[in-house]
Amino acid sequence: MYSNIRIVLVNTTLSANIGAAARAMKTMGLSDLCLVEPKLFPSAEATALASGASDLLASARVVATMEEAVADCTLVIGTSARSRTITWPMMDARQAGEASRLESETSKVAIVFGREDRGLTNEELQRCNYHVCIPTDDVYGVLNVAAAVQVIAYEIRMAHLLQADESVAVPEENRMPVQFIRWDKPLVPHGDMEQFYAHFEQMLVDTGFLEQDNPRQLPARARRLFGRIRLDRIEYNMWRGIFTRLQEMATELKKAKS
Amino acid sequence: MYSNIRIVLVNTTLSANIGAAARAMKTMGLSDLCLVEPKLFPSAEATALASGASDLLASARVVATMEEAVADCTLVIGTSARSRTITWPMMDARQAGEASRLESETSKVAIVFGREDRGLTNEELQRCNYHVCIPTDDVYGVLNVAAAVQVIAYEIRMAHLLQADESVAVPEENRMPVQFIRWDKPLVPHGDMEQFYAHFEQMLVDTGFLEQDNPRQLPARARRLFGRIRLDRIEYNMWRGIFTRLQEMATELKKAKS
Repeated sequence: MYSNIRIVLVNTTLSANIGAAARAMKTMGLSDLCLVEPKLFPSAEATALASGASDLLASARVVATMEEAVADCTLVIGTSARSRTITWPMMDARQAGEASRLESETSKVAIVFGREDRGLTNEELQRCNYHVCIPTDDVYGVLNVAAAVQVIAYEIRMAHLLQADESVAVPEENRMPVQFIRWDKPLVPHGDMEQFYAHFEQMLVDTGFLEQDNPRQLPARARRLFGRIRLDRIEYNMWRGIFTRLQEMATELKKAKS
Repeated sequence: MYSNIRIVLVNTTLSANIGAAARAMKTMGLSDLCLVEPKLFPSAEATALASGASDLLASARVVATMEEAVADCTLVIGTSARSRTITWPMMDARQAGEASRLESETSKVAIVFGREDRGLTNEELQRCNYHVCIPTDDVYGVLNVAAAVQVIAYEIRMAHLLQADESVAVPEENRMPVQFIRWDKPLVPHGDMEQFYAHFEQMLVDTGFLEQDNPRQLPARARRLFGRIRLDRIEYNMWRGIFTRLQEMATELKKAKS
């Protein structure tokens, strides 16, 4: 249950981040926001960044300590970028999403996000059941706090959708599992395909199938069709050869008639 | 390969979003950023929001059209919140991450993000092989563009990390995925397709492209191609209509010449 999952922001400095975090939450169906000693709240900037999620700011609870924020939760997961001196039970974001979903069926969950510059203190992290680590680049791993909320909230939503077997935004049967198999010939890039579509349409005009000024849905359908098929180089050359031959024939016919 | 995956932002209005998108990319190991007609670039605000990712802004390419941005890519995935009039092959963010990873082993991929207020136009979406939909809340689904980049970039990174993990049982590229999606039009059965192939080949013979006795590999290639695409009824009728028109033209030409 989304309503049992709380996002806790600790000592957030920038109001923009509070607003952006609220928006990130709402897009993923979360609504319970708790702020631990924010530097400034409420603020016009947070409201502006929240966009259509200002209701989350209006109902946000402001508390003085992390303990207050998580007191009624059975599962508390703290976000941590660094590995700490004491090894703690770790999850990745996907596991955190699934764990939160499962726990939220029966009780309250909190995911706790730290300060922009220093994250959570060791003491705060030790108040968590688990730490969640979003797998970032080894060289540059500094996620913005609202971006981190977005990723975790997304995984929470994915866990719910997968559980409900509403498989995701796109139901299983509407998802397009593709030919992402290793192919024997190189696929042609989009620049070439633009020439292909232009050639195809011109051929259809030359041969009298299509009216130049009234192609209706045909160009879009051709794009959809060849877009989902993705031509390899040999197939591409084959079609271009066919189009050219058909155009030659149209020219011959015009000559023969004149 | 991360370096083969490009993020394309179309007509971004707010500089802050460009900066935040660059940061989101870099945290997930992506570096190829292409801006299609940004309202303002470069800008101090983008650089500020990029934080440690200002190098991505420095190396970002600015182009005039989406076509330029994706010309060298074999796989182009457009982000779309709305369902469109013509059903297009859809992926969720997780599939898009995996598809991008796999394709990027051998060629270039672009993920295209639209305007803050209106997303991508229908014309732009029709230039994509697939559309990706991030599963948002039914009531409030308006993801910030940098937040959307964050989620997609995260899934791309997860796909790479999972791939590197030996515990993945069946390598994705050894599985043959099929397009079993619910389509807006009924797909044609095999019996009809046999007539289609016969018609196609006869048309190519009639128009002088193919020698009846020496069709070489073309029939097999046509079967492989249309077999992996699977035509719906409208597409099927469209092609049959084209073939018929071309045969009529061949007949006219024969008459005109005799």
